[in-house]
Amino acid sequence: MSAPGSLEKLIEALRCLPGVGPKSAQRMAYHLLQRERPGAERLADALGEALQRIHHCQRCNTFTEEEICDRCASSKRDSSLLCVVEMPVDLNMMEQTHAFNGLYYVLMGRLSPLDGIGPKELKLDRLLERAADQQVREVIMATNFTNEGEATAHYLSELLHARGLKVSRIARGLPVGGELEFTDAGTIAQAMYERRDY
Amino acid sequence: MSAPGSLEKLIEALRCLPGVGPKSAQRMAYHLLQRERPGAERLADALGEALQRIHHCQRCNTFTEEEICDRCASSKRDSSLLCVVEMPVDLNMMEQTHAFNGLYYVLMGRLSPLDGIGPKELKLDRLLERAADQQVREVIMATNFTNEGEATAHYLSELLHARGLKVSRIARGLPVGGELEFTDAGTIAQAMYERRDY
Repeated sequence: MSAPGSLEKLIEALRCLPGVGPKSAQRMAYHLLQRERPGAERLADALGEALQRIHHCQRCNTFTEEEICDRCASSKRDSSLLCVVEMPVDLNMMEQTHAFNGLYYVLMGRLSPLDGIGPKELKLDRLLERAADQQVREVIMATNFTNEGEATAHYLSELLHARGLKVSRIARGLPVGGELEFTDAGTIAQAMYERRDY
Repeated sequence: MSAPGSLEKLIEALRCLPGVGPKSAQRMAYHLLQRERPGAERLADALGEALQRIHHCQRCNTFTEEEICDRCASSKRDSSLLCVVEMPVDLNMMEQTHAFNGLYYVLMGRLSPLDGIGPKELKLDRLLERAADQQVREVIMATNFTNEGEATAHYLSELLHARGLKVSRIARGLPVGGELEFTDAGTIAQAMYERRDY
């Protein structure tokens, strides 16, 4: 009776994937076992290898196989600018813009008291230590404009200000291609408050 | 044979309504004639009355029944700020934000060379005259962030600058509640360029 037990364990394990409920997990498990045994094996290996090799960059906290990731080690990046994002996916989005050539710090989350995630859980001390690097001239908050992202940016900006650092926030306003008619009032209000000289 | 002629004219006339094609126009016409004759009469009267009474405000160019609209005539608005929008609907959106207590100028369109709408067709002279009012301290461009809206803002800003006026543009950036992961690269890039000090 060991087989059903391990099937159930696999189904349960698959549920840790985002957006996968009990039914999808079951379907995935059957598919892997019936038709994709080589794929399942590769997946198991890949998971094992990733878990073993990938850890956090000592400088920017993103995922890397090195002690310090390629970006942080690069001499082509502007080390006077430090951009703080919530997750590696946000870092990737920012990189795709080609609008920023500085360095990053990835929080791997956001302050979220309701979920029990405070400054300690986010290890904000590590960011403060990183920002204390003499080369950093400006810390740019690029957390999301959700309530939690805003609170995180605000909290961090106070800590960084207290250490005498210049802190900025990426702009709020209308998206590229945006029309007033189809934009929410809060965003239009921000665009008005934060208007720029022509 | 005069009846079919006027029905066809009505159907054709209804097609001037936005989003109404030949089929909707036919359906509307039959509905009005069969079941909504009092409504159709009220519509005809309302159209006639509106056409007769409503014209453009001498100051802000929006629709009004007065010579000068209530907003322009109000002493409670800050007459040192002049916000330029494309259409009355944009003015309404801006008013809903309660973020602006200045006055407006409604272009009633945007520069669109492909549609044959140039500075003359938009009567930009009237705006320049309005902005020359000694009380105006800053002209805020709140045209849309579409290609045409941007071009209009840019063109106008040069004309106004040449007259020694301070010109600004409402901000581009992430919308309120916006997350980097789901925002286009162009908008994130603008949010980075236009970041503000904390």
